[in-house]
Amino acid sequence: MKIISILGVSGSIGTQAIDVLRNHKDKFQLGAISVGRNINYLEEILEEFNPPLVSVMEESDYLNLKQKYPEIEFTYGDEGLIDVATYKTDLLLTAVMGSVGLIPTIKAIESGTDIALANKETLVAAGSIVMQKAKEYNVKIIPVDSEHSAIYQCLNGENLNEVKNIIITASGGSFRDLTREELKSVTLKDALNHPNWSMGQKITIDSATMMNKGLEVIEAKHLFDLETTQIKTLLHRESIIHSMVEFVDNSMMAQIGNSDMRTAIQYAFSYPERIYKDNPLDFNTISTLNFKPMDLERFKMLKFAYDALEIGGTMPAVMNAANEFAVAEFLNGKIEFLEIEDIVESRMNQHQVVQNPDLETILYYDALYKRVEVNEW
Amino acid sequence: MKIISILGVSGSIGTQAIDVLRNHKDKFQLGAISVGRNINYLEEILEEFNPPLVSVMEESDYLNLKQKYPEIEFTYGDEGLIDVATYKTDLLLTAVMGSVGLIPTIKAIESGTDIALANKETLVAAGSIVMQKAKEYNVKIIPVDSEHSAIYQCLNGENLNEVKNIIITASGGSFRDLTREELKSVTLKDALNHPNWSMGQKITIDSATMMNKGLEVIEAKHLFDLETTQIKTLLHRESIIHSMVEFVDNSMMAQIGNSDMRTAIQYAFSYPERIYKDNPLDFNTISTLNFKPMDLERFKMLKFAYDALEIGGTMPAVMNAANEFAVAEFLNGKIEFLEIEDIVESRMNQHQVVQNPDLETILYYDALYKRVEVNEW
Repeated sequence: MKIISILGVSGSIGTQAIDVLRNHKDKFQLGAISVGRNINYLEEILEEFNPPLVSVMEESDYLNLKQKYPEIEFTYGDEGLIDVATYKTDLLLTAVMGSVGLIPTIKAIESGTDIALANKETLVAAGSIVMQKAKEYNVKIIPVDSEHSAIYQCLNGENLNEVKNIIITASGGSFRDLTREELKSVTLKDALNHPNWSMGQKITIDSATMMNKGLEVIEAKHLFDLETTQIKTLLHRESIIHSMVEFVDNSMMAQIGNSDMRTAIQYAFSYPERIYKDNPLDFNTISTLNFKPMDLERFKMLKFAYDALEIGGTMPAVMNAANEFAVAEFLNGKIEFLEIEDIVESRMNQHQVVQNPDLETILYYDALYKRVEVNEW
Repeated sequence: MKIISILGVSGSIGTQAIDVLRNHKDKFQLGAISVGRNINYLEEILEEFNPPLVSVMEESDYLNLKQKYPEIEFTYGDEGLIDVATYKTDLLLTAVMGSVGLIPTIKAIESGTDIALANKETLVAAGSIVMQKAKEYNVKIIPVDSEHSAIYQCLNGENLNEVKNIIITASGGSFRDLTREELKSVTLKDALNHPNWSMGQKITIDSATMMNKGLEVIEAKHLFDLETTQIKTLLHRESIIHSMVEFVDNSMMAQIGNSDMRTAIQYAFSYPERIYKDNPLDFNTISTLNFKPMDLERFKMLKFAYDALEIGGTMPAVMNAANEFAVAEFLNGKIEFLEIEDIVESRMNQHQVVQNPDLETILYYDALYKRVEVNEW
């Protein structure tokens, strides 16, 4: 029985992770969990899984729950996330959104817990530090993003030194068929309508801007210890090939499946085993798979990410923070779609990069570049 | 330095294997080789690689070569093939065509030599015996067919118990777009014009009839120890996805590359390493990959192969022998294209299956069903 804790149990990844646990109660047991303000959903989880430790965001929820479920240990706030992350468990799924996942992930690594990483901002902001920690504490970081899970699977039994390139596929998001001119008039509702994947709002917008692919490029660099030039992207609208690895002998390995995040979640949970899952892909129903070279003029946010990766230091963290800010502004109806790009670009231009930053420096800039007004000086 | 012997050095696979050795003289050294009657080509190989032992088909060639190259050991005929197969070496590539490869392959296994298997008839005719021998002598059988090499690569680091299905892709061969009615009037020249792969004549005809895929299904069953129902086929005209493995968790792994047999040959030679190769596949030049369910009414030969596999015993060997006979007749202009099917079908119907045959029984029926007249009684 593998005990699995979950940071962010009520989000898109969290609820799908619960599905996986529900389907395999003989193999997995729920450990500690954190939730934000979705107390109704939390109570369903409590009834069904009876987790030993639960963290909520608000003290008021904490006080109520403590009284209602005296047999369960509760905790709350930022400290609560760390309590969950450091709870003794076999695997921690980090499924909170944004850079808030960073410190709990590091604390979990320091307690020797393997990580199922769904919070890509952790590696984007502080990839060098996190991967170094993982090495130091001999902790596995198993990716949950479908693309990185695909690459992880393609590298099974292979030698990293024999990798020539990795090819991260991109569906193109909600606006893949629009020109830049046409992007000027898109709405929030359009942006939230992803053609293939059912995901949270932030990541759905990131898919529409192609920043999601940019974050994935940076995440991949750290996860697989690659040169930036080894990380390619490819438009593949069906999202059937989840990503590929090209080896020095020109063999390419691909992981293929339908657009079901639970496959990657389950793989991270069961790794190195594979266990039964429903909902197979029937290739007899597929007549064509389409591919198109990535266009960095069209998808400027992806270019920003490659730039941030080349510049290094604090730049990826700043880009990520600026993007989190801009996407929140867009989700709140305060800016137009293309202004997301403008904000990220201008904030990156404004930033004076610090090379080899420590965690405090990263957190400082992360917080700074999420503000409405940024003033470095 | 890995020493590699080659049975059938002048054929399509043999000459491409020589290319691989030529490109990696720092890694591989040519061991013993056999050739049929292509003495001119053989002499080029002798000049360039100076192999220690050489077998030819004809005694007259043997006598001439012995005199001309006194420093090289020569041998000839059927015994010569066995001398090459049992020459002490790291790996033997079995690239002769047809069931003539069977006995030398078994002898090589009995001498403890790992096999790079390009002679699929070996497993089709006597898969159970050969795989049992390989197990007994702890010998690796590394497939060289692009499809089986793909599956072998997809299984790297994976657990065979977690395989749900394998999906062997089929380009469809020269006549994939023709109806059965249109097949009535095709010529030998049409049949030899394979759309994707440059291969020998026999296998090109087998591709056009889809028997090649049938032989591959049977080969796969033995190589990967699967149930017949686990072996699927899929039409994929571009031959870019070389084959796939579907696991119990619905993840599918695929091996992808351009249509270059040298990739699979080199993989078998370098396994478990991957080494540099030229001629990469550029996915930016691919816009679509096409797929179509296999149609066993249209491609009757594939159905015969599934039937033979289900019937078991001597039936696959008989089917293979009947096919070798029929293809030879077609290549000699003696029969029409569709008569290949008729001959295979009628000979399979005629055969009284022997279950759990020993090698002698298999060889008896193999020889019998290659004759112009077959009389079992």
